[in-house]
Amino acid sequence: MVTGSIDFAKYDTLVDQIRSAVGEHPSVVAGVGPFSSLFRLNEFKKPPLISASVDGVGTKPRLASLLRRYREIGVDVVNHSVNDVLTSGAHPLFFLDYIGSSGLDQQAKLELIQGMVDACRDAKCVLIGGETADMPQIYQEGDFDLVGFMIGACEEDDQIDPMRTRPRDVLIGLPSNGLHTNGYSLAREALSIGLEPGSLKDIEFLERHQPELGETLADALLRPHRSYLADLTPFLTKVRSLAHITGGGIAANLGRVIPAGLRAVVERGTWQVPPIFSFIQRSGQLSDDEMFGNFNMGIGMIAVVDPKLATDLMAKIPCFRVGLVERTLNGHDPVAFIDI
Amino acid sequence: MVTGSIDFAKYDTLVDQIRSAVGEHPSVVAGVGPFSSLFRLNEFKKPPLISASVDGVGTKPRLASLLRRYREIGVDVVNHSVNDVLTSGAHPLFFLDYIGSSGLDQQAKLELIQGMVDACRDAKCVLIGGETADMPQIYQEGDFDLVGFMIGACEEDDQIDPMRTRPRDVLIGLPSNGLHTNGYSLAREALSIGLEPGSLKDIEFLERHQPELGETLADALLRPHRSYLADLTPFLTKVRSLAHITGGGIAANLGRVIPAGLRAVVERGTWQVPPIFSFIQRSGQLSDDEMFGNFNMGIGMIAVVDPKLATDLMAKIPCFRVGLVERTLNGHDPVAFIDI
Repeated sequence: MVTGSIDFAKYDTLVDQIRSAVGEHPSVVAGVGPFSSLFRLNEFKKPPLISASVDGVGTKPRLASLLRRYREIGVDVVNHSVNDVLTSGAHPLFFLDYIGSSGLDQQAKLELIQGMVDACRDAKCVLIGGETADMPQIYQEGDFDLVGFMIGACEEDDQIDPMRTRPRDVLIGLPSNGLHTNGYSLAREALSIGLEPGSLKDIEFLERHQPELGETLADALLRPHRSYLADLTPFLTKVRSLAHITGGGIAANLGRVIPAGLRAVVERGTWQVPPIFSFIQRSGQLSDDEMFGNFNMGIGMIAVVDPKLATDLMAKIPCFRVGLVERTLNGHDPVAFIDI
Repeated sequence: MVTGSIDFAKYDTLVDQIRSAVGEHPSVVAGVGPFSSLFRLNEFKKPPLISASVDGVGTKPRLASLLRRYREIGVDVVNHSVNDVLTSGAHPLFFLDYIGSSGLDQQAKLELIQGMVDACRDAKCVLIGGETADMPQIYQEGDFDLVGFMIGACEEDDQIDPMRTRPRDVLIGLPSNGLHTNGYSLAREALSIGLEPGSLKDIEFLERHQPELGETLADALLRPHRSYLADLTPFLTKVRSLAHITGGGIAANLGRVIPAGLRAVVERGTWQVPPIFSFIQRSGQLSDDEMFGNFNMGIGMIAVVDPKLATDLMAKIPCFRVGLVERTLNGHDPVAFIDI
C-alpha cells in the first residue's frame, strides 16, 4: 500500500471505540458514525435560539505530544467551547471534534477523545460526531491540531444582551488555573520549549519540579482549561455580559462586550496572578503589555454584573471584584487598566 | 514584538471584512464576532431535529497554496458539509469554519472566506462564525488546514432512515466533477506533486495543459466539491438513503447505509470515470482496488431509491443507474462490485 492511502479498517475500529466511550444519550438520534449526526431538542417546547462556537487549542498540542499526555487537551477543547457558548446565555447541547494530524497513533487519538467525552459529560452535553484526518506532510510526525464545535441553546428570553450594561456595573473575575488554551506560541518561545517536535531536552525540562511553581512545568502548562458552567449556571439569566478571556487577554476580550459610550476599568492588583505567568515573563523577558496582551493572567472569565449581583457572586463562587464600568466618550478604548 | 505574539489589530480587520462579506441574514441573532453565534430557528413551528457535520478538505490545501488559488477550496469545505447534512434528510442552516495555518496572508484568508460565503449563499445557509488560528511551527509556512462545521435541521418526520431499504431498490449515482476533497495525499504521491510546499517545478507541471484531460491538472484538481443540494432537494423525503462518497470511496461509504441482511451490488462500467482518475492511476501505477478504495471514481453521491423513484430521478437530474440492492447473508460485505 502506498503511504498516501488511508487505513479504513483501523478507522472503523476507532469509530467503534469512540461509540462505546460516548455511550447512549436520550437526545441523540444518530451519533458518531454516519455522514452527519442528528440531535433531538427534547427539553424545548418551542424552537430555542441555537448558539454555536468553534475553538482550537492553539499550539498547546505541541506540548501534549512531547509529553504524550493527550487526555487533558481533549478536556481543554470542550471546556473552551463550553465557556464560549455560556457567553450567549446558552447551555451546551452537543459537541463535534476535528483531529488533524500526521502519524498520531490510535492510543493518542483515543485519549484525546476520552478527554472530550469526560468533559462533555461534566458539561451535561454529548460528543455527537467528529472527523479524524491523517494529513501527511501538512503536520510534522506526531503533531496534531484539535478543533471543537459546540452547539448550545437557550430560550429566546434568556439570551445575554451586553447592551443592558450600565455605568457602575461591576467586573467580576473568575480565576483561571493557568494559560487555559491561549498564548502557547509565545510561552513556548519564552521558555524555549516545543519549538520542534520530540526534543528530549524539552521533555526533561518540562518534567523537572519547579519550586517556584510548586509543580512541574508540564503540570502547570497542560492543566486543562477551566469550565465556568457550574459556577455561572445559577446566575446566567442575571448577568449583563460574560467575556471569555482567551487570545488577546483581558483587553481584547472584555472589549468585545462593552457597549459604546462605556468603558471597563480593570484594577490590576485585585487578584493574584498565578506563578506560571511570572515564570514565563522572566524566562522570556516579556513586558507587562506583552503579558496582558497574550495571556489571561489568572482571570479566565469576566462577568459584568450589577452591584447587587456582584455581592451575591462574591459570596457564592470563587471570584474577584476586578473593576467597574464607567461612562466615557465614544472612540475611547473600551477597556482601561489601572494599577492599585 | 516576539514572533509567538499574535497581531490582534490585524485580526479585528479580518473580522470586519468577513462580516461585510457575509452581510445580513434574517435568522442570525449574533453572527461573526462574539464568543459564540446565535441563530433563530425562524422557519420551524416546533423544535426540529438538528443535524450536524464536521469536515476537513484533506491535503488539498497543499495544492491551493502552491497555486495561490484559495476561493475554490472555501467552496469545497462548505459543499462537502452540505452533502453530509443532506444524507440525514436535513437542509443546511448555518456554517462555521476553522482555518489553522502558519504565515497564511490576509488576502488568502479572505479568499477562503469568500469561497465559503458564496457556497453558503448557494446552499441558502449562512456563515455564522469561525476561528482563524496562527500556529507557528505546527504548519509549514504557507500551509493551512481548513475545517467546516455545518448545522442543518429537518422536521422529525422527514429524517432519512436507511432501515427502510428493500431488496430490488436501485442505486442511483450522481456524477462527481473530480476528486472532490478526498484522496489528495494519494494523488499528490502518485503525481509526485505538492510533497513539499512552494516547489516551482510542481507549479509548472500543474499549470501545463494536459490534452488527455482537456485542461490543466491545476484546474482538474482544484475544481470544488459538487453540492447535490439543488438536485436532491425535491426528492429528499422520498429516498431510502444517501451515501456521500468521500474518503474510502464507494465501498466504505455506501456500506454505511446498507442494513444488515442486504447488500449493494455496484455495476462498474455503468458510468464514465472522469479522465483525471486514469491520469492519476497511470502516473502512480495504482491498482483498481487502490483507486476504488481511495477515490470517488466519478460518483459523488449514491441515492438508494425504490425502482419507481429511480425512473423519476433518471428523467429529471444528471445521474446513472449504478446497481441495485439484494438480499444476502449477514456477515457478508455490504457492498459488492461487478464489472459489466
